[in-house]
Amino acid sequence: MQRLASVFEKRSLGALLAVVCLVGVPTMANAANKEAKKDNTVWVDPFIGTGGDGHTFPGAVVPFGMVQLSPDTAALSRGVDPQHEIYKHCAGYHYDDHTIIGFSHTHFSGTGHSDLGDLLIMPGTGKVHTKPGTEEDPDSGYRSRFSHDREQASPGYYMVELDDYQIKAELTTTTRTGLHKYTFNGEKDGHVVMDLTSSIYNFKNKVVWSDVRVIDNQTLLAYRSTNGWAKHREMYFAIKFSRPFDRIELINEDNARYRCNGCLDAGKSNKPSTIVNDAIQFTAGKDIKVVAHFDDAKQAPLLVKVGLSAVSRSNALENLTTELPDWNFERVRAEAKEQWRDKLNVIDAEGTKAEKRQLYTSLYHALQAPSVYQDVNGEYRGVDGEIHKATDFQHYTLFSLWDTYRALHPLLTYVAPEKVSDMIQSMLVHYQQSYDDMLPIWSFHAHETWTMIGYHAVSVIADAYLKGIRDFDHELALKAMLDTANNPKYDAIPEYIKYGYVPMDKLSESVSITLEYAYDDFTIARFAEALGEQKIADEFYRRALSYKNVFDPSVGFMRGKDSKGGWNPAFDPEEAKLMGPFTEGNSYQYTFYVPHDAQELIKLIGGDKAFEQRLDTLFEKELSHEKIKEHEDIAGLIGQYAHGNEPSHHIAYMYNDAGKPWRTQERIRQIMDTLSSDKPDGLAGNDDVGQMSAWYIFSAMGFYPVAPGNLSYSIGAPQLPKISLNLAKNKTFTVEAKGLSKANKYIKSVNLNGKTLQRSYITHDDIQQGGVLTFEMSDKPNKTWGSALEHRPPSMSR
Amino acid sequence: MQRLASVFEKRSLGALLAVVCLVGVPTMANAANKEAKKDNTVWVDPFIGTGGDGHTFPGAVVPFGMVQLSPDTAALSRGVDPQHEIYKHCAGYHYDDHTIIGFSHTHFSGTGHSDLGDLLIMPGTGKVHTKPGTEEDPDSGYRSRFSHDREQASPGYYMVELDDYQIKAELTTTTRTGLHKYTFNGEKDGHVVMDLTSSIYNFKNKVVWSDVRVIDNQTLLAYRSTNGWAKHREMYFAIKFSRPFDRIELINEDNARYRCNGCLDAGKSNKPSTIVNDAIQFTAGKDIKVVAHFDDAKQAPLLVKVGLSAVSRSNALENLTTELPDWNFERVRAEAKEQWRDKLNVIDAEGTKAEKRQLYTSLYHALQAPSVYQDVNGEYRGVDGEIHKATDFQHYTLFSLWDTYRALHPLLTYVAPEKVSDMIQSMLVHYQQSYDDMLPIWSFHAHETWTMIGYHAVSVIADAYLKGIRDFDHELALKAMLDTANNPKYDAIPEYIKYGYVPMDKLSESVSITLEYAYDDFTIARFAEALGEQKIADEFYRRALSYKNVFDPSVGFMRGKDSKGGWNPAFDPEEAKLMGPFTEGNSYQYTFYVPHDAQELIKLIGGDKAFEQRLDTLFEKELSHEKIKEHEDIAGLIGQYAHGNEPSHHIAYMYNDAGKPWRTQERIRQIMDTLSSDKPDGLAGNDDVGQMSAWYIFSAMGFYPVAPGNLSYSIGAPQLPKISLNLAKNKTFTVEAKGLSKANKYIKSVNLNGKTLQRSYITHDDIQQGGVLTFEMSDKPNKTWGSALEHRPPSMSR
Repeated sequence: MQRLASVFEKRSLGALLAVVCLVGVPTMANAANKEAKKDNTVWVDPFIGTGGDGHTFPGAVVPFGMVQLSPDTAALSRGVDPQHEIYKHCAGYHYDDHTIIGFSHTHFSGTGHSDLGDLLIMPGTGKVHTKPGTEEDPDSGYRSRFSHDREQASPGYYMVELDDYQIKAELTTTTRTGLHKYTFNGEKDGHVVMDLTSSIYNFKNKVVWSDVRVIDNQTLLAYRSTNGWAKHREMYFAIKFSRPFDRIELINEDNARYRCNGCLDAGKSNKPSTIVNDAIQFTAGKDIKVVAHFDDAKQAPLLVKVGLSAVSRSNALENLTTELPDWNFERVRAEAKEQWRDKLNVIDAEGTKAEKRQLYTSLYHALQAPSVYQDVNGEYRGVDGEIHKATDFQHYTLFSLWDTYRALHPLLTYVAPEKVSDMIQSMLVHYQQSYDDMLPIWSFHAHETWTMIGYHAVSVIADAYLKGIRDFDHELALKAMLDTANNPKYDAIPEYIKYGYVPMDKLSESVSITLEYAYDDFTIARFAEALGEQKIADEFYRRALSYKNVFDPSVGFMRGKDSKGGWNPAFDPEEAKLMGPFTEGNSYQYTFYVPHDAQELIKLIGGDKAFEQRLDTLFEKELSHEKIKEHEDIAGLIGQYAHGNEPSHHIAYMYNDAGKPWRTQERIRQIMDTLSSDKPDGLAGNDDVGQMSAWYIFSAMGFYPVAPGNLSYSIGAPQLPKISLNLAKNKTFTVEAKGLSKANKYIKSVNLNGKTLQRSYITHDDIQQGGVLTFEMSDKPNKTWGSALEHRPPSMSR
Repeated sequence: MQRLASVFEKRSLGALLAVVCLVGVPTMANAANKEAKKDNTVWVDPFIGTGGDGHTFPGAVVPFGMVQLSPDTAALSRGVDPQHEIYKHCAGYHYDDHTIIGFSHTHFSGTGHSDLGDLLIMPGTGKVHTKPGTEEDPDSGYRSRFSHDREQASPGYYMVELDDYQIKAELTTTTRTGLHKYTFNGEKDGHVVMDLTSSIYNFKNKVVWSDVRVIDNQTLLAYRSTNGWAKHREMYFAIKFSRPFDRIELINEDNARYRCNGCLDAGKSNKPSTIVNDAIQFTAGKDIKVVAHFDDAKQAPLLVKVGLSAVSRSNALENLTTELPDWNFERVRAEAKEQWRDKLNVIDAEGTKAEKRQLYTSLYHALQAPSVYQDVNGEYRGVDGEIHKATDFQHYTLFSLWDTYRALHPLLTYVAPEKVSDMIQSMLVHYQQSYDDMLPIWSFHAHETWTMIGYHAVSVIADAYLKGIRDFDHELALKAMLDTANNPKYDAIPEYIKYGYVPMDKLSESVSITLEYAYDDFTIARFAEALGEQKIADEFYRRALSYKNVFDPSVGFMRGKDSKGGWNPAFDPEEAKLMGPFTEGNSYQYTFYVPHDAQELIKLIGGDKAFEQRLDTLFEKELSHEKIKEHEDIAGLIGQYAHGNEPSHHIAYMYNDAGKPWRTQERIRQIMDTLSSDKPDGLAGNDDVGQMSAWYIFSAMGFYPVAPGNLSYSIGAPQLPKISLNLAKNKTFTVEAKGLSKANKYIKSVNLNGKTLQRSYITHDDIQQGGVLTFEMSDKPNKTWGSALEHRPPSMSR
């Protein structure tokens, strides 16, 4: 996999090299040479997750690409749709919808909050609309009806027929550009609307400023800054048409005002002693649309290519001309697919079509972010808002760390190891550039959103380092971890340090924060220990025990505690309230959040039996909507277990810690059968930038990183007959599930490289060295395997 | 002058060198050593022009400084004051006002349109206000009453007592920083309000975006982008207090919205599963004020220093720490004064106190712009919006060229010759960075406003080159001139080229545009000829005759003409209407706008006698307000002559062209006596970034550049007994007016370096070589001197 990927790695990393490569080499021929190679892209269905609350997008993207060119089906930034709709449309598109408003160039994959949707482009014929119109009355705007029957998506490619206009729209991308192909099959007159006001966010005044300039009759440059989830996010665009437009309209609703420099009365249209150059095609304001007209749109397909940059117009243009020097849509599409084919070859799998569709689509979703956030010349915008240049690493953005530290980042150490050090370096420059001396929390596009809790970047760094991915400055990393974990201005850290827990009378979400800090501290301890900094390690191992301070033995639950040591009198372990002691969860779920020290948690709860019972209660006690109504994110329920949200993700594996691996095996199958499918609504909740997908991939293989940083994977049960991980250095780690069937969901025995495995976990070394992990499956549980204390997954205090 | 200025030149140009210089050298001692040196700063009264419609500001600035730290007396950006008030307050301050709202860091000097007013700071005591309040009820806001009795201003220094708070506020500056000193004499508790919404512009929603971040308890960083005359202008600020504040409030009126990242309802203040770090003191939005509290404000004066940058926060901080490394207000004030002392030594003058006050204040106003627009590290924002770095020249902004090409730029070739090539290079990079392939028209702060007409940058470049100031790329300059003058997208150029004039049915201001293009073309011809490009020169000499195409011999006036050749049927030579054929003027004035070819104009009008009569009519025929009511700029009237606006500035000198220099001598004295004084309302109209001041300086010396680019100066009459220009290479050019008195306003004879001068003009070489120009003055006109055709100023077609 590594060798095959190399040609495309160069494309991302070396701009000029890429030009030579694209222009000078007959790449289609190269692709032909690789024809024999397996093609896992056929198993990817980008529509999985676009229904329900998966929040994925169906459009075109390359692995870790800066551009996600995808259809949008809701006009959210205008306040046209009610609040309720924004959560449904975090990715711009929802499978339930019947109209498309256009194609925009940036999208989150699977988030629970929204932003992006930059530069919406929509082709049309006939009457020109400059507003999107409504889903109920599509003819009132530029949007078009469409049908899933005439819609296709595959890695690097999206196609839809816009029924209202008889236009076939196709999309593909490179890392930093989007390429549109519009085939007009209806009327002769065609036009392309570019709506700079369109955006994904629940705020109609999201656009802070924008401008557009006509460079020539095929080229535009545009800018927009928005106030969304990220405040004052800046994006520059270079737009080129494959042939000259016959005329262009720059429509500025602020026109009267901005056209009249000298007017003291904004309403007047006269121009006292002041010339506004009408012939110079530039406009700026907050409400800009551009319409390019093509009198004979039918003569040939019209292509539009768009380069993006967060740095400058000139960089957007350089990105465009470097990555898309010509107009060969099919070649670009083929190269995008080729990048995916190489990347998806990291896993070989056997299974049903539905299983392979789920697995490879999960892998596809897992390889989208963190995404490139750097121009071909090396420049990028830092979290300080300033322009920096990285010469020795690729700069990435989009760290949804509360979600992705759990399984996505551990997965990337196997499926994209060559990216991991660069992602860590990107987090370290974030720390260096942060005025707050902080590693990223939930950051994207040069902004820290301070969303969610914890400081989970430390887990990602520790896990990678301990696995031997070390191409970054270790001392800097330790300093960054310590500055972050001791930051007197960040969230609940002062209270956490002072009290050993976060008092509920001081801050909300106090219990969840305490628990997550404690886990994060465990990973800092592990990292410091590996660097030989034992004193620091000891301190953080001590902090890692802080979870004990919010455990109330009188009720056997994690429970809010005030600064005087009093327990929350209104305690209800099922309740998940905004501003309560838990983060998008309740005490049933969060009581299990001691991933690094499960054996100690079991003792607190009262031993293996009590622990198992509590797990059973979690999975069996119905959770009424009333208790969680304030949270959209708590979804995918099995009892109190919410598969659709991250605090639950590790819990099914904790039967292992109580010596009951067969119960884990049952639960994993139960989750797989009831909360996961290969349909658009096949995700039980937000994919959360690949975390849900990473859960699926690990769990399908039969193991899961319950506590990243301890280098172990708790064994669940394989869900496909055979999955091989093609690792670096030509190693392969293969998981075989002999006898796997609907009935045979239990593990009879496990064999690693020919030796019986007694423990209910494997280690990173087991995987990294390559080999074969063979499961004998059965319809009857093996109740002794993995039950002995010494065979259970590692626990810090043990 | 050149030698003395050198130490301060280094300060502007070399950041690190400056630090060494400021810190390491006992500069106060240096100043003491120079004690014997003459000090012309005593003659500068920064209040001249702050009354009437002069539109100058009284605050602190260093020569060509980026920062103009000055009091503002009107809260214009809030829409508090009516439209009428904005014109009066283009410089933020008006001498008529009785309250001060605070001190902001950027101001135009003398413009007729408004912008800037960046980062208003106001100290106070007692109740904290976050709105300025009104002039009528100052107690309703943070503004304070003040009296001119307790107000002082001198070059580089401003002081006022804020009566409502018993605070003495003092201001001084370096090139890129402002330094405030507040002495609290009243209550013990003090505070400083920083209002990021305050601005100078008639639009209450001027602020597009802003943010502020507390770095530590003495340091803030802030940003703001505004939509004013310049669209989306960006400014960064680094703010430091001389001692820690006891607490700070970041007040954001958009607070509910921006404090709640995860809230889907903007009105809610809860925070679902989303942490906003209250301890991290940062806020962003459109309505931000900051209040720093000092519990014991009286303990010592409080200093505030502010660094500005158009590039980045880090550059703002670097500018601040480089130029203001410590807290020595008196030293900074002394150095600012020293810079002015050096610069003002370029002129030695004898005369009454009032005359010297007018002369040196004019020189002070003439040495403020174009102003530095570049950080100490060389970076600056270009007109393309991108960040550039200039290593081999100082980058300047603020080209009010329709005004300043006339006399200010010619004056700078003598009084600041070391700056001129850099200013030209700044115009050339503007051309290179302009997406429109244009030299600047009326540009400032990385924006082209497209205000006013013509392309007068060509005149500035040609004049400087022909005078031997040539440290720029001449070929590039010619290309820039040609691209500008032939630009198919700029204003009326296509029509001008097609018809030989601008048809009034195609564009407004058609006659003025035609006339000014024709003059500009003369300067291009002169420049091309000097470069040996005779073919280009011939073409532009031909274009320079285009003025003939809008002269209607049937009425003897310049007159609107349509594209079919028909004359304006509604012609009224007195009328100055918006959207009419003239720009801020009427045909009486613009008929004289053939500065480069006066003899040919005289022929058109009917000979010397008719020309003289027309001049007399201009100066004697009353102009009713009804005719000019649409223009605020047409001010300072003597008949139809409007000294307050630029189209008239050269006209009094045109009696010379008709062989009647004594009539010019009368008119100059008349203008001086009636339209100029050393009082706050001593300017007859906007100073227009030094143009009015340059008119005064030249005219006081006895000559004026009627047609920059022809290297000649039409002789008027000296108004002071003796003025010496201290030129480069230790040359001095001295003008003596023997026998000058109230009655002796006429020239009896002129002597240049001991030889009688018969011609009514001098040349650049006469000045540049140094020497003595001696006038014998008389109470009787010498009607023969200068009357012969060969003694009249040069005329292109002669």
